[in-house]
Amino acid sequence: MIKVVICGAFGRMGTIIGEIISKEQDMQLVGGVDIKEGTFFGVPVVTSDKLADFLSSVQPDVVIDFTVAPAAAQNVPVAARAGCAIILGTTGLTQEQRKGIDAAIREGKVPAVISTNYSIGMNILWTLIRDAARKLSDYDVEVIEAHHRYKKDAPSGTARTILQILQEEIGPREEIYGREGMTERSSEIGVHVIRGGDIVGDHAVMFASNFETVTLSHRAYDRSVFAEGAVRATRWVFGKEPGIYGMKDVLNLS
Amino acid sequence: MIKVVICGAFGRMGTIIGEIISKEQDMQLVGGVDIKEGTFFGVPVVTSDKLADFLSSVQPDVVIDFTVAPAAAQNVPVAARAGCAIILGTTGLTQEQRKGIDAAIREGKVPAVISTNYSIGMNILWTLIRDAARKLSDYDVEVIEAHHRYKKDAPSGTARTILQILQEEIGPREEIYGREGMTERSSEIGVHVIRGGDIVGDHAVMFASNFETVTLSHRAYDRSVFAEGAVRATRWVFGKEPGIYGMKDVLNLS
Amino acid sequence: MIKVVICGAFGRMGTIIGEIISKEQDMQLVGGVDIKEGTFFGVPVVTSDKLADFLSSVQPDVVIDFTVAPAAAQNVPVAARAGCAIILGTTGLTQEQRKGIDAAIREGKVPAVISTNYSIGMNILWTLIRDAARKLSDYDVEVIEAHHRYKKDAPSGTARTILQILQEEIGPREEIYGREGMTERSSEIGVHVIRGGDIVGDHAVMFASNFETVTLSHRAYDRSVFAEGAVRATRWVFGKEPGIYGMKDVLNLS
Amino acid sequence: MIKVVICGAFGRMGTIIGEIISKEQDMQLVGGVDIKEGTFFGVPVVTSDKLADFLSSVQPDVVIDFTVAPAAAQNVPVAARAGCAIILGTTGLTQEQRKGIDAAIREGKVPAVISTNYSIGMNILWTLIRDAARKLSDYDVEVIEAHHRYKKDAPSGTARTILQILQEEIGPREEIYGREGMTERSSEIGVHVIRGGDIVGDHAVMFASNFETVTLSHRAYDRSVFAEGAVRATRWVFGKEPGIYGMKDVLNLS
Repeated sequence: MIKVVICGAFGRMGTIIGEIISKEQDMQLVGGVDIKEGTFFGVPVVTSDKLADFLSSVQPDVVIDFTVAPAAAQNVPVAARAGCAIILGTTGLTQEQRKGIDAAIREGKVPAVISTNYSIGMNILWTLIRDAARKLSDYDVEVIEAHHRYKKDAPSGTARTILQILQEEIGPREEIYGREGMTERSSEIGVHVIRGGDIVGDHAVMFASNFETVTLSHRAYDRSVFAEGAVRATRWVFGKEPGIYGMKDVLNLS
Repeated sequence: MIKVVICGAFGRMGTIIGEIISKEQDMQLVGGVDIKEGTFFGVPVVTSDKLADFLSSVQPDVVIDFTVAPAAAQNVPVAARAGCAIILGTTGLTQEQRKGIDAAIREGKVPAVISTNYSIGMNILWTLIRDAARKLSDYDVEVIEAHHRYKKDAPSGTARTILQILQEEIGPREEIYGREGMTERSSEIGVHVIRGGDIVGDHAVMFASNFETVTLSHRAYDRSVFAEGAVRATRWVFGKEPGIYGMKDVLNLS
Repeated sequence: MIKVVICGAFGRMGTIIGEIISKEQDMQLVGGVDIKEGTFFGVPVVTSDKLADFLSSVQPDVVIDFTVAPAAAQNVPVAARAGCAIILGTTGLTQEQRKGIDAAIREGKVPAVISTNYSIGMNILWTLIRDAARKLSDYDVEVIEAHHRYKKDAPSGTARTILQILQEEIGPREEIYGREGMTERSSEIGVHVIRGGDIVGDHAVMFASNFETVTLSHRAYDRSVFAEGAVRATRWVFGKEPGIYGMKDVLNLS
Repeated sequence: MIKVVICGAFGRMGTIIGEIISKEQDMQLVGGVDIKEGTFFGVPVVTSDKLADFLSSVQPDVVIDFTVAPAAAQNVPVAARAGCAIILGTTGLTQEQRKGIDAAIREGKVPAVISTNYSIGMNILWTLIRDAARKLSDYDVEVIEAHHRYKKDAPSGTARTILQILQEEIGPREEIYGREGMTERSSEIGVHVIRGGDIVGDHAVMFASNFETVTLSHRAYDRSVFAEGAVRATRWVFGKEPGIYGMKDVLNLS
């Protein structure tokens, strides 16, 4: 039985993951963390400042974090040092925050899966984008993503991962976040961040050359796709060797 | 027989329009204007500084201008004061430039068609966008356009017309040309300018609300679509009462 | 207080509508109908054969039906003759079934809203499609829709309404459901029915001519968009004059 | 200097390829074949029945065929047996016709490039589709293509190649060319053939699963993209070992 604590228990992702885990046969939801106390799915939710004590009391195997960057920067090191395996889905971390988290994971000698997107399809699309970028390296590249009106970080963590892949394969290229006035396209990557309604998450990479475009895209219809991936990662990370893994390890993608 | 002079004779649009007009039964191509002298389709091409003399010599009925803003600001007033009907397709005019052109058209007492897009489909889409904006005024709105890598003005003249329609129906709203970092969507219109390859011209307006999006879009496959519209406007404008018209008048759209 | 019974209580739509109505201040969920008995949201669910008795016992103001065609053909006449206002969202009705329902609504002298799609966006898109079809009547027209892998009727009821609008404006045209082998496009409407995954509902109409396409499309992200529209119709239909209405009446669209 | 004859000289593709080759430094256009005699780009065009004599007279290195299936089935064997290298772009060949062509290429001991699509982007997309199909083998798959209103074969040769790749990786699966009435999606591939206007060529493969879709697509803006690929293949095939090659050999794609 894999005992799980979820940080961001009352958030959109935390609620969906909590619901799934509370129904799984081989998992047990033992608690949550959020900015206010309470209960969810019949287990206690505590605040971040009480996390250390709470973890030593409920002894979870895995701590899942889908919060915001400052909260994750606080929660994850505590959990890692307490010996819990980590599933980190929070995006928008500064380099500083990410370094602190990585250090704590090494200190705690725990296994951790860190990904900006837990959907299977997106993880596979990332491998296709890498391959396409290699083969179409002389094409103009534009990245377009769309999310709901309340999403604050621009571009999305998923788009940042796409950009990182592109930079690794065809970079360094300047990233242009918006064009207005008289412009001149050079060797750059245009990034377009659409916000509106409650769009769950669309991402596209367009490679354009003379007379043709090649476009690779992903559309999420429901946040459950991320929650199910996180639960799959939870099952995978349990008992793994210490280290920092990605969803491509969980999915065994080359 | 409608006698026509084309400004921008060696440009992409000028060449296509010239080719069409030189084959029409009821039209006669009598000359062109560009930054260097020469001939096209068997008729002389002169430079802008010689336009006045050239017009009094060849006596065209209609002058078509698909150039760049500074050139149009120079050519069109000369042509209008010479009594020629005007077809103006140049985009990116400043308010100042546009005022000068309008004044010359009034002084010359000539009919003129001015449009940022001469395709039939786009002119009809504009009417649909206006209607949609009225009916979906509480939806989030984003405008996305894509053109070839060499297009300099951002957004396109066509997108500017779309934005003007949206502002008239649901504005004033701030126009946001790019989102990066921590953002917060308010009552705004996001504008996304994609540049790459040799995309002829795509435009889309997305209305997003809870659980749904409505999108109206247009794709041009070939610049001929604009050229054919300009030729249709040329036939229409010949003999009309003085005044400034749009393609919606040419197409009789309400 | 508007008392409501929902037919199809355990279905996808029935569950969502039931949840919304059970939370509304001015509505009271008083029962459900489905192929097996039980309870939902604390009220009894009966089978269709007991509907007449059940209605005379709970005396609802409005009966909502989101079932399948044979069930709706049975439920709705019973409810209409019992004097209940009707919200009918079931699609795939035969002409015969529809006639029976219409007759019962007239006999019962009740108001009824009948629509193949209760989303606001789609109802507005229908008006835009009608306008576009009039203005682009000489363009080639293709209809594309996509739904989840379990949807059985092809095309969707919503696409049928789109086709009906197109036929009224530019028809009669043959509808072509699939092209294979050596084909020859004539004055026809191509209809493309995509099925896969759990796509909630995409619809697009493409008008194609020389060098350009105009596309009007709608995407639903969550079935709640239909449920919320049905609840809005429920509030609207309550107390209306007898007659058969559409969502365009509810939304006051011309 | 590579001497070239083009079959289908007066066709859309033949004209574009002829224009390009007549301008290349290292190539010489020496003749054409079509259903009527004449000249194109200053060289003679003969009919198919005179092809053998014509080839022995002009001694071309490469014969390019972009015609229709029956013509290609006649032209290509004549050219191959005459010792000419072959670039074959004609689609819609029956198995019988293809066998005859393959046999003649072997007999003639010539190198031949055969592809249903000569664009670089599509050839790369095919490799991505193969990879995606392997990784997303349990997703529902739908193929959508769109071409101009005059295209007769459905689906396009390019789409057939896509289907072949899918069948090799995740098949055998039934191909469904249109859904109408009451349907039930099983392990199948839906194929959607859109025809309208003068769309140059769009292709998309959609992989759909719970809550997400992954789509890989290609859009051609101008037939030049195929012509340029065919010219590139012409340069590549000249002097190669006898054998049947694909564009992936020309482009050195694994």
